[in-house]
Amino acid sequence: MRACVDIGGTKVAVSLSAADGAPLLARRSEPTAKTGDNDAVAVQILRMIDAACAEQGIDAAAIACVGVSTCGPFVLQDGQIELAAPNICGGLSGPARGLPNSWRSAQLEAPLRRRFARVRVENDGVAALEAERRWGALQGLSHCAYVTWSTGVGVGLCVDGRILRGKNGNAGHAGHSYVADDDNEVQCGCGNFGDVEALVAGAGVAHRFGREPAEIMAAAQRGDPQALQVVDGLCRVMGRMLYNLVVTLDLERISLGGSVFWHNRDFLLPRLRTQALTPLPPLTQGVELVPAGLGERVGDYAALALLD
Amino acid sequence: MRACVDIGGTKVAVSLSAADGAPLLARRSEPTAKTGDNDAVAVQILRMIDAACAEQGIDAAAIACVGVSTCGPFVLQDGQIELAAPNICGGLSGPARGLPNSWRSAQLEAPLRRRFARVRVENDGVAALEAERRWGALQGLSHCAYVTWSTGVGVGLCVDGRILRGKNGNAGHAGHSYVADDDNEVQCGCGNFGDVEALVAGAGVAHRFGREPAEIMAAAQRGDPQALQVVDGLCRVMGRMLYNLVVTLDLERISLGGSVFWHNRDFLLPRLRTQALTPLPPLTQGVELVPAGLGERVGDYAALALLD
Repeated sequence: MRACVDIGGTKVAVSLSAADGAPLLARRSEPTAKTGDNDAVAVQILRMIDAACAEQGIDAAAIACVGVSTCGPFVLQDGQIELAAPNICGGLSGPARGLPNSWRSAQLEAPLRRRFARVRVENDGVAALEAERRWGALQGLSHCAYVTWSTGVGVGLCVDGRILRGKNGNAGHAGHSYVADDDNEVQCGCGNFGDVEALVAGAGVAHRFGREPAEIMAAAQRGDPQALQVVDGLCRVMGRMLYNLVVTLDLERISLGGSVFWHNRDFLLPRLRTQALTPLPPLTQGVELVPAGLGERVGDYAALALLD
Repeated sequence: MRACVDIGGTKVAVSLSAADGAPLLARRSEPTAKTGDNDAVAVQILRMIDAACAEQGIDAAAIACVGVSTCGPFVLQDGQIELAAPNICGGLSGPARGLPNSWRSAQLEAPLRRRFARVRVENDGVAALEAERRWGALQGLSHCAYVTWSTGVGVGLCVDGRILRGKNGNAGHAGHSYVADDDNEVQCGCGNFGDVEALVAGAGVAHRFGREPAEIMAAAQRGDPQALQVVDGLCRVMGRMLYNLVVTLDLERISLGGSVFWHNRDFLLPRLRTQALTPLPPLTQGVELVPAGLGERVGDYAALALLD
């Protein structure tokens, strides 16, 4: 029996899986723990796994391995991953954010390893990429990426048949790259001004234009010229990020998901393709931008994809 | 005996090497062949290797392996690398460039493989990275990059201990990424408008400001406020590209070379560090930007570094 854990800034989800391909069992979700000591999130996860096991009548000692798909970034403490996520750690985001703790990082890998023999922690972009490579639109590809366009912008990368991890497992934070100067005043949750996530992710769009992305997308699809201009601007920024990934890593396909993209995919895809795949033909010709094969279920399968 | 080949848009250089660490022999250089059939560059290389062998009194059949460090981008033809380089192929750059051929690509790997048992072709950014990892400032590192800031901007990338190649060996073309909107009218040799190379490489700077980079750098170092403003603008763009590489790939060190950087490195490094290593501390803290350990000799060692 295996445990799948999904950690976001808002909620933590836990489920069990009997074997590869079996349905997820005992799925439960809670608001992410943000009070007490900096092991609170890990303690919460252990408690939720115990509860899921109890519900299924399973001895928690029978859990052989745990896959964790989580928001980042990561820092290493004695070689073990901790979360330095500004939407969880009050010591990083500062008093303006109002988080009820002063953590500089949240313990994660070490407490799980004290209980379970096999633990694999990856950032949620990497985990979603694994899911798309195993069951989705990136099967059989050696040079590819998964990009989520949602509340934030997350990326998982694969080059030469290998998932990229980097020195602390943070490869894929291209959502915090700089690609344009559309609005150098708008601040990202990470503290940057005017990075991709600040400009095009859900929270940034609402802040910049005073309307939710869904509303702007709907107006643009009805032909509202102002909304169309906004969407073209968003696609210019997101398209540049996708293009940058293609030329920096010589990719063959990128699959896209996330709520902002998914609900408007037929409208956004041609615009993104124009931005991302027109320049530098020797590198972009034949490259494909496609909707995630797992659709809205990418997140559900991400942690599961980390387990053999 | 091994042959080392360096192909640029302006010249082709060939030398021989008896063994690892031995000095390069019979080095010769010619203007890059650009007339005749699209195998002209490959024919030129074979002739230059023969001439180098003759000079050393060596039977050309004794050449066991050939390393080729070359400008790109690459395309694959029946699995063999050909050059789709706009400064060599007139069929790509169009009539305005005035190249005396209409090649869409230049043959390279296939003709060399017909003569030699072992041939390794890499883009010059990758080859320079290999040299820096073997003998320069990137020894022993698993997550690193080499960046040249010269007539063009070239990059070689290493993540998780492995050199990144990509679907056609073009990984590292971050010089053609978009990071800002400083001047969306200035055209790069690749056809893009306003990419990094267009904005900060030697040719782009001369075009944008009517003065060579060396002249602007000298004026800035004398305290000329206008020149200082130009240099700060160039460092903003180049620094953003370096930052984007760090957060996309979670690197630990980047070594820098190339004529624009090298001759002004003490002046440029602090400015680049401010741009590249200030944002997103969990990913940039402790990351190092350093001058190339091989200095101006990186290019000389690049092809040699491709051979075992």
